[in-house]
Amino acid sequence: MKVAQVLHMNGGVGEASYGNNSLVQRKGISLTKPLIEEAITTLYSSTLPRSLAIADLGCSSGPNTLLAISDIIKAVENLCLQLKHKSPEYKVFMNDLPGNDFNSIFKSLDSFKEKLRDEIETGIGPCYFYGVPGSFHGRVLHNRSLHFIHSSYSLHWLSKVPEGVENNKGNIYIASTSPSNVLKAYYEQFQRDFSLFLKCRAEELVEGGRMVLTFVGRRSDDPSTKECCYIWDLMAAALNDMVLQGKIKEEQLDTYNMPVYYPSPNEVKLEVLKEGSFTINRLDVFEMNWNPSYNWNAFDFESEISESLSDGGYNVAQLVRAGTEPLLVSHFGEAIIDEVFSRYQEILTDRMSKEKTEVTTITISLTRNT
Amino acid sequence: MKVAQVLHMNGGVGEASYGNNSLVQRKGISLTKPLIEEAITTLYSSTLPRSLAIADLGCSSGPNTLLAISDIIKAVENLCLQLKHKSPEYKVFMNDLPGNDFNSIFKSLDSFKEKLRDEIETGIGPCYFYGVPGSFHGRVLHNRSLHFIHSSYSLHWLSKVPEGVENNKGNIYIASTSPSNVLKAYYEQFQRDFSLFLKCRAEELVEGGRMVLTFVGRRSDDPSTKECCYIWDLMAAALNDMVLQGKIKEEQLDTYNMPVYYPSPNEVKLEVLKEGSFTINRLDVFEMNWNPSYNWNAFDFESEISESLSDGGYNVAQLVRAGTEPLLVSHFGEAIIDEVFSRYQEILTDRMSKEKTEVTTITISLTRNT
Repeated sequence: MKVAQVLHMNGGVGEASYGNNSLVQRKGISLTKPLIEEAITTLYSSTLPRSLAIADLGCSSGPNTLLAISDIIKAVENLCLQLKHKSPEYKVFMNDLPGNDFNSIFKSLDSFKEKLRDEIETGIGPCYFYGVPGSFHGRVLHNRSLHFIHSSYSLHWLSKVPEGVENNKGNIYIASTSPSNVLKAYYEQFQRDFSLFLKCRAEELVEGGRMVLTFVGRRSDDPSTKECCYIWDLMAAALNDMVLQGKIKEEQLDTYNMPVYYPSPNEVKLEVLKEGSFTINRLDVFEMNWNPSYNWNAFDFESEISESLSDGGYNVAQLVRAGTEPLLVSHFGEAIIDEVFSRYQEILTDRMSKEKTEVTTITISLTRNT
Repeated sequence: MKVAQVLHMNGGVGEASYGNNSLVQRKGISLTKPLIEEAITTLYSSTLPRSLAIADLGCSSGPNTLLAISDIIKAVENLCLQLKHKSPEYKVFMNDLPGNDFNSIFKSLDSFKEKLRDEIETGIGPCYFYGVPGSFHGRVLHNRSLHFIHSSYSLHWLSKVPEGVENNKGNIYIASTSPSNVLKAYYEQFQRDFSLFLKCRAEELVEGGRMVLTFVGRRSDDPSTKECCYIWDLMAAALNDMVLQGKIKEEQLDTYNMPVYYPSPNEVKLEVLKEGSFTINRLDVFEMNWNPSYNWNAFDFESEISESLSDGGYNVAQLVRAGTEPLLVSHFGEAIIDEVFSRYQEILTDRMSKEKTEVTTITISLTRNT
């Protein structure tokens, strides 16, 4: 399976769409806002470009897509007002895999720009938006084309399932029962992918350019910690139940593994240091509950959304489904997918009623070395 | 009706898609290939940019979308080989209205690049593709971002139906029975739109940058000539039949007009001269039969396409449907659309059996003044 050809968040605005099931990520982006503002403010005031080029890598589609871009433009306009500078021209590059629903982003741009103009009463510079299809595990933009790169909840996706994990039987990611070669294979794939990611971004950024990267990770040095593996342990449980009932072949489950890796802060720092193109300004780690209703107040949303948030198991199952359905369908087929997620939801509801279930986010702010 | 929000070529690969019904345009693009090659060759050899930025405005989706881009890249690579120069980096900007099917373009890019690499055995420079949603009747790209602009079979679309054509009753475009104020209103809308188009492109092009624009026009100085109006006369006939049968309200037909204009060479030249940013290098006019089977040889396509080409009325009705269905549906509703095109097809089949039916294309090559 070629991940870049299969993987994409569920498009559109339906029940299983990423747009409707990304409130945890939305909270995460809002928590990294101060870091983004700090980075863009420092960058802009030190370089004062007449034309500011920003990219969002792994932008997906839905309400989160232009959230960080909006924060970045607001921060720059605020700064221009303080410095009594003319607003720059904005070039906004929205990147994701070719299967992403770019059509829905493009159709939303007029209302996005209108909203932005309403919110920034002092006016904003001209904004030009570009869609950039392609995998960030390689080059996606031309040389020295960017001042600022943002990426949230994307970079934990690997370019492929690591090779040599055939003996990870019954599991779909690293688990406490995984043989040690599986842990090693996953870590080495992360090293290759993240190192190439840094190299490519260094070619795309101007000297002194900045990046703020946010992704799922772990605090522990142990890659098989429950902290990051539990969400896939529970899906593996659902799939194993279906193997027992003869609905999925054992061999099918044994040959499926998720192309993700949740690194520790040390693993991230080590790779940045080894690759050498970037300096780390800051690295933050924070936790959020799996259940969006723990992260948001009831009054953050209109009533119909708030009500649907109360069913934790459903919400987490939908959140995972929005991001993984195309991968699972490609391996297991369309027929079993509803049952997989219905079983997964049951297991999640049970566990979430008995345990505190959290996801760890790492955010890192980097400057391209001159 | 806001044209920019409604107008788009039918997406996807279905029977009524633009991709499947654009063989006349395809022939037109192939006929302008020498002009495109001449323009890009002169531009490239005089400026030798390390990074070459090309835009296709009104790129649509389907097999025609990347045709000119492919010709441009081949011409540059050929020149690099002759000059013993290193290939440049290519930045390709694909523009169309936000309703265009960009998803399908993006999904086709990998195979396009692979095909290009197969065809150019000596290798090509790195290619970066960007989708640019927005109307070319305004700015779509950032300042001084382009070396070369190509646009084919798009620029005859106006930004809106001209105001003050309420008395164009029973017609849907300029017709021999149109009052003179209708002709004037259409011409003035063309002048405003084409002049703003030139101004915007002058801001987006670097000095010395080039454009090759191909659009439907007319040879005659008379804007109500059958040469360009006949295709809409026949659709108006279909709609009027349906008014007589009570299937469409007379008022509905009277308030509908096509947002297009088919200028004469003199009208085009005058506007370029008045606007002042560009010098005309060359202007060509050529005719093609409405029926794709007159423009292509049987051996140009695989057999199943060749066979379907024989039904001229069907082909022209489909060609027009692929480009106008969203506009017509937005005004007349979904319910009557199949009947409109079935009647239109009948009328076309009859006329095409009795007359020589041709469409006039104008191609113009321009250089941005320094």
